[in-house]
Amino acid sequence: MTSRSAPLPPPAHLPPVDLTARLAGRARRMTASAIREILKITQQPDVISFAGGLPAPELFPLEDVRRAADAVLTRYGPAALQYSTTEGHLPLREWIAARDGIRPANVQIVTGSQQGLDLLGKILIDEGDVVLVEAPTYLGALQSFQPYGPRYVELPTDEHGIDTDALEEVLRATPAKLLYAIPNFQNPTGRTLSLERRRRLLELTAQYGVLVIEDDPYGQLRFTGEELPSLYQLGLELAGGPEQSHVIYSSSFSKTLVPGLRDAWVQAAQPIIEKLIQAKQGADLHTPTLNQMIITELVGDVLPRQIETVKKAYGERAQDMVARLREHFPAGVSFTTPEGGMFLWVTVPESIDTVPLLAQAVARKVAFVPGSPFYALGGGHNTMRLSYSSATPEQIDTGIRALGETIRGALG
Amino acid sequence: MTSRSAPLPPPAHLPPVDLTARLAGRARRMTASAIREILKITQQPDVISFAGGLPAPELFPLEDVRRAADAVLTRYGPAALQYSTTEGHLPLREWIAARDGIRPANVQIVTGSQQGLDLLGKILIDEGDVVLVEAPTYLGALQSFQPYGPRYVELPTDEHGIDTDALEEVLRATPAKLLYAIPNFQNPTGRTLSLERRRRLLELTAQYGVLVIEDDPYGQLRFTGEELPSLYQLGLELAGGPEQSHVIYSSSFSKTLVPGLRDAWVQAAQPIIEKLIQAKQGADLHTPTLNQMIITELVGDVLPRQIETVKKAYGERAQDMVARLREHFPAGVSFTTPEGGMFLWVTVPESIDTVPLLAQAVARKVAFVPGSPFYALGGGHNTMRLSYSSATPEQIDTGIRALGETIRGALG
Repeated sequence: MTSRSAPLPPPAHLPPVDLTARLAGRARRMTASAIREILKITQQPDVISFAGGLPAPELFPLEDVRRAADAVLTRYGPAALQYSTTEGHLPLREWIAARDGIRPANVQIVTGSQQGLDLLGKILIDEGDVVLVEAPTYLGALQSFQPYGPRYVELPTDEHGIDTDALEEVLRATPAKLLYAIPNFQNPTGRTLSLERRRRLLELTAQYGVLVIEDDPYGQLRFTGEELPSLYQLGLELAGGPEQSHVIYSSSFSKTLVPGLRDAWVQAAQPIIEKLIQAKQGADLHTPTLNQMIITELVGDVLPRQIETVKKAYGERAQDMVARLREHFPAGVSFTTPEGGMFLWVTVPESIDTVPLLAQAVARKVAFVPGSPFYALGGGHNTMRLSYSSATPEQIDTGIRALGETIRGALG
Repeated sequence: MTSRSAPLPPPAHLPPVDLTARLAGRARRMTASAIREILKITQQPDVISFAGGLPAPELFPLEDVRRAADAVLTRYGPAALQYSTTEGHLPLREWIAARDGIRPANVQIVTGSQQGLDLLGKILIDEGDVVLVEAPTYLGALQSFQPYGPRYVELPTDEHGIDTDALEEVLRATPAKLLYAIPNFQNPTGRTLSLERRRRLLELTAQYGVLVIEDDPYGQLRFTGEELPSLYQLGLELAGGPEQSHVIYSSSFSKTLVPGLRDAWVQAAQPIIEKLIQAKQGADLHTPTLNQMIITELVGDVLPRQIETVKKAYGERAQDMVARLREHFPAGVSFTTPEGGMFLWVTVPESIDTVPLLAQAVARKVAFVPGSPFYALGGGHNTMRLSYSSATPEQIDTGIRALGETIRGALG
């Protein structure tokens, strides 16, 4: 839009600058997400995709968001569109703090929980620090931490989540900075960490002075089984309060309300939150004002209703997918049966590599995510993640049948 | 919201973990913004504050935003609230690219230009890299870059911006990674880099292989004087196209439309944009979907109208403040006369330190920002930044009079 009113002399060719050579070492550690590239392949319109991790859009409270936007623009006027505080909208922080009986000073609003993970990596990870992760774990967390140069050590998992005996061995052998875990309906496996192991994990990490980042985007989406306290809640009890706990909790409104507003939060002891505020100030000043106000408008009555709606839908879809897996998948294939969340995890016979299998599946008009990118140190060649969150019964039946045929084909 | 259905055994006290000792070296380099702390002092309701850098809220196109939000929720439905691409909303990137005749592949949407600076720091700055900055420069940029461990070298400036002869000397003596500049109506000084110096800056930096980050939030808010091409536009001409240019351009809708939606962008050659995409994916996945769609809805007719409104208002306020400065400030005080933007810069006699002066000013119910935090390497004890963007004529008259009296008092 700037017009060039001053006539310029004829171009003098500038010497070229080698841009790639100017990148930081940190940038060389970054890579495009394997999933992102895979999702591009699978986005052909006639492919049934269990690959994405998208919340079901038909369940979004669209009209509630519209009303909320209108209401906050009326109530707050220009303040809804002005710069606001780095910590986040106080009424929203108060609501979040009240859930666990902590104070707003223990809560930092972030632009999606991805930002929480990035900022935590930024304030915690020195190059070479050992970060303990589940095998497999959430790929996005690996991507957030990666630029800060962690050394990943994987923790073995089974159907009850992290194997805490194995954890103890690792801790005894390896000085670690932090442990990153998704205890509820893990992405990618759908598994849940048992209560006994939650307690043991907290004891062990406290004993060895290892911080715990608990990533909990799905915790409220339990559709079967018994509610478990979060690591954060257990930590409050066991340590004696929010300032004594070594657990840093991350959650989000992306899976319960809508993801596109990018509203999430981190709760932790104040020394952590204070550094997060400084990091966030440098990172984006603050999360969009209007968005935080819209979310605050919805947490009172829309959110509880929405959680029930989503739980019911995902519960039915999960049950349906599990039934179709039993029906259409050949013997020798195993899979998890999640009690909540959006994903389940399939292990096919060792002879199959799911990366080439994906191309064969797409040829049969169905897609999944191969499991190997979820392993920090590689492995899992015969695993895959399936998402049921936004699939119809027809898509589940047709897609799982086609996937079963693809696996049978690969087995010869 | 998670209920604790399983009865817990009595608390076993966990050994305490020293959280502060777990922070990364990077976190120790971060500090709370000096301005942020200062703004807290000055936010007493009866103090006239020229300290903040807030766009005038009474000019915000509130009803247009309301209509745009409603329109995009209707047009896009749940897609307006769903996850979206890391690069940003394509129609918005197309609109931005068309301004300079480049391609959407040269444009990355970011969550406020602060995020653009953070991500550029992340992909470009290795610990110890020399970053050339104006003396003084934008404090927020220093905060963004700081965690990545740059070594700042200051460039002397005068009323025409960076002294390019001094730049040449610096470049000859010091291998530098990048130069960060705000050529238009600089924050904090309000100064503008002359056309001749723009050309010289580009030649010198290209010759020495130094990347240029051009931060241009205010460029469209010129209320007097002649439009100048951006460094980016000159770079396109001189280098022969977007892939040959060594200029990275950052701008924002925060000062022309509204800041609270946090929509801004970076444009650069593709090797830079590709790394920015990866960095952004790890940092927050994407800028909020709804917000980008709202901005896209406004760029066609609301933005040009809004730019005229804002320019007119800020032009009047700047003229007014300059007139009152001439009237009320004692001899020996000098100040800049900006041709656009939101700030002007005052230099008081050497004998005055503006940090203690601020307390005296607040006692007289007027506030400013002391200049020293804007110097990467310290200095500027006798300078201050004044913002006229959101002040009324009465506030300007009363406030500048009180500030003049404060300075007279300090001079004895």
